[in-house]
Amino acid sequence: MVPKGFLFAAVSCGLKKSDQLDLGLIFCPQGARCAGVFTQNLVKAAPVVLGEERVRRGFTRGILVNSGCANACTGVQGLEDARNILEELAKVLDISAEEILPASTGVIGARLPVEKMSKSLPKLVKKLSPEGYEHVARAMMTTDTMPKVVERTFELPEGSARILGLAKGAGMIAPHMATMLAFVLTDVQIDPEYLTEILRKAVEHSFNRITVDGDTSTNDTVYALASGLAGLEVHKGTKVGALFAEALTDTCKELARLIVKDGEGAHKLVTICVQGASTEEKALQLARIVADSLLVKTAIFGEDPNWGRILAAMGRAGILFDPNQVDIYIDQVQIVSNGLGLGNEAERAAHLVMKNSEFAILIDLKEGVKEANILTCDLSYDYVRINAEYRT
Amino acid sequence: MVPKGFLFAAVSCGLKKSDQLDLGLIFCPQGARCAGVFTQNLVKAAPVVLGEERVRRGFTRGILVNSGCANACTGVQGLEDARNILEELAKVLDISAEEILPASTGVIGARLPVEKMSKSLPKLVKKLSPEGYEHVARAMMTTDTMPKVVERTFELPEGSARILGLAKGAGMIAPHMATMLAFVLTDVQIDPEYLTEILRKAVEHSFNRITVDGDTSTNDTVYALASGLAGLEVHKGTKVGALFAEALTDTCKELARLIVKDGEGAHKLVTICVQGASTEEKALQLARIVADSLLVKTAIFGEDPNWGRILAAMGRAGILFDPNQVDIYIDQVQIVSNGLGLGNEAERAAHLVMKNSEFAILIDLKEGVKEANILTCDLSYDYVRINAEYRT
Repeated sequence: MVPKGFLFAAVSCGLKKSDQLDLGLIFCPQGARCAGVFTQNLVKAAPVVLGEERVRRGFTRGILVNSGCANACTGVQGLEDARNILEELAKVLDISAEEILPASTGVIGARLPVEKMSKSLPKLVKKLSPEGYEHVARAMMTTDTMPKVVERTFELPEGSARILGLAKGAGMIAPHMATMLAFVLTDVQIDPEYLTEILRKAVEHSFNRITVDGDTSTNDTVYALASGLAGLEVHKGTKVGALFAEALTDTCKELARLIVKDGEGAHKLVTICVQGASTEEKALQLARIVADSLLVKTAIFGEDPNWGRILAAMGRAGILFDPNQVDIYIDQVQIVSNGLGLGNEAERAAHLVMKNSEFAILIDLKEGVKEANILTCDLSYDYVRINAEYRT
Repeated sequence: MVPKGFLFAAVSCGLKKSDQLDLGLIFCPQGARCAGVFTQNLVKAAPVVLGEERVRRGFTRGILVNSGCANACTGVQGLEDARNILEELAKVLDISAEEILPASTGVIGARLPVEKMSKSLPKLVKKLSPEGYEHVARAMMTTDTMPKVVERTFELPEGSARILGLAKGAGMIAPHMATMLAFVLTDVQIDPEYLTEILRKAVEHSFNRITVDGDTSTNDTVYALASGLAGLEVHKGTKVGALFAEALTDTCKELARLIVKDGEGAHKLVTICVQGASTEEKALQLARIVADSLLVKTAIFGEDPNWGRILAAMGRAGILFDPNQVDIYIDQVQIVSNGLGLGNEAERAAHLVMKNSEFAILIDLKEGVKEANILTCDLSYDYVRINAEYRT
């Protein structure tokens, strides 16, 4: 069930080839409280600059999202273009332009085709319906192979509410978010400050714990919108607050998982789990360097339990640990004990596990009790093909 | 012409498949002054641990190098194995075992087959000749497609001398050296402290300025040996010293260039040059992040002047610069001016330049006068194939 107060529509306006959906609208006629988390890239696309500014109002009536053009590295003109298309949409919806949040993804450096998009706005608005959310998820796709939608229902004695998550990912997915857009919509009643706090933590434990290629995009944007129409109030410091935060985090984690699973050219979804660390920060940094290592990622593609590459990647993290104490497992199969390989039989068993499309690489430092996970994928021929041919 | 005082030999002892050369010896019957620079990886292979210890003596009689087995992540047993094979060699050569420097490359985690290697030692020693250096370069190769040899003659009024450089590279080539071994041999007379100082600086400006895949190996080793037999004395603070340092650096740069050119699956040799920076450190960090970006490397493979990926990579370096002031050139062809693309015509011209096997990506920050270069290569299907299939 979709959260109350949201309408959805998508059209094809010629930003992408062959009549694919490329322009989506999420509209909240009665408005919503909002929060946003954005790319940490110094080079920020126009919709990010504008979105950061507008989300601070804490109130919005919706999101206009397009694929096919990132409107990044487009300077003052790009900001002007982004403002203009929102202005046009506001006229059609008869609301204030400042009440729409922008999001764009696609090629960097090309101007937003405002005219093309403008012409499609009346049709877009006409198509609005509570059921159209999958179309919006499709209109966000670039090299994604499937739309990413997560639904959660939230049942409590105090009342019930819904969370709907839409995302796009594919490439440029890295430590600090990614070329990813994610919209989390809910009908709880919550103030924007608390929503921002919850969203930030959720992003830290979901979208910031995935990697496809180590590149971070200019357009990463996560918006959370709360319509308040379910009648359930969420306040900080309450049990309902904690449960809502958990449900929202869970929604983001599932979206993040779908993003890596559908990473460019990815065939394997692999959890890099570093445990037994003295601090979580240390576990996280080691997990990241393993998750980003090309040699580890190609070994995953080759289903080769090449643990030497794992240890070698950890060794260059600039972090102190004792390599002679490390244990490594592929799911349940131990392949390294105290820094030494356990031989061919163990590796054959691990190779069989690696034939699965999902598995974990567990690295135990045996120096403490902290742990951290990063989701990664293999590096395949298809990644190279997709990224060598992207614009040509 | 080969520097005086060095003999070379290589044999096949079964570490690699199909009778390829895999065991090489560089022997200096009268001994040489020596210096070494080693991997900064926390996980150090046995030959690195042993080599670091032995090179400190400042005197050596040669280097035993093998491919096919890195003798890394092999614990106490690995150190024992490395010591044993050098012991066996010392017996055959009738010298002290501490006078031989070890170097290994190949698969991590496998034990060094000491017995196999031992059996080949008499044959190896018998083959020693001043001409055999290319065979040694071949015996070092792993996924390299060609041996890497650089020769320099050094002519001065004070006398003449020679420098010979041998290297292997291919994968795991990254910021802080690589799975790379390099041996620089010369017949000048120099004390080991000054040789160490010169070698460190040379490595910083050559092997530390290249990247293939961002991974750093457990086995990186650069040795410099000086036999002193040319009769030319090199002292610190003299003109001869400066010229020798320049020639040695130049040799290392050329070896580094050959390593990237022969990077795993590489078809393009690309210099990433960041200029107009306020500090060299900043230029270097930005050049590195661009050189390591998978999206940039796949765009190079696709001959696509996708400058948005270059700016996006720079933006995530965590370094402050003004994206709206950046100019980007492919060789002489400008494609970005003040952060904005110069359009299709410029990109078509840049695309033509990118069809070449060597070109430069110049990034001008226009904020200062410092610059730095990193050599990189494209990321191709072949990189994935080579690294997915390495052990299988």
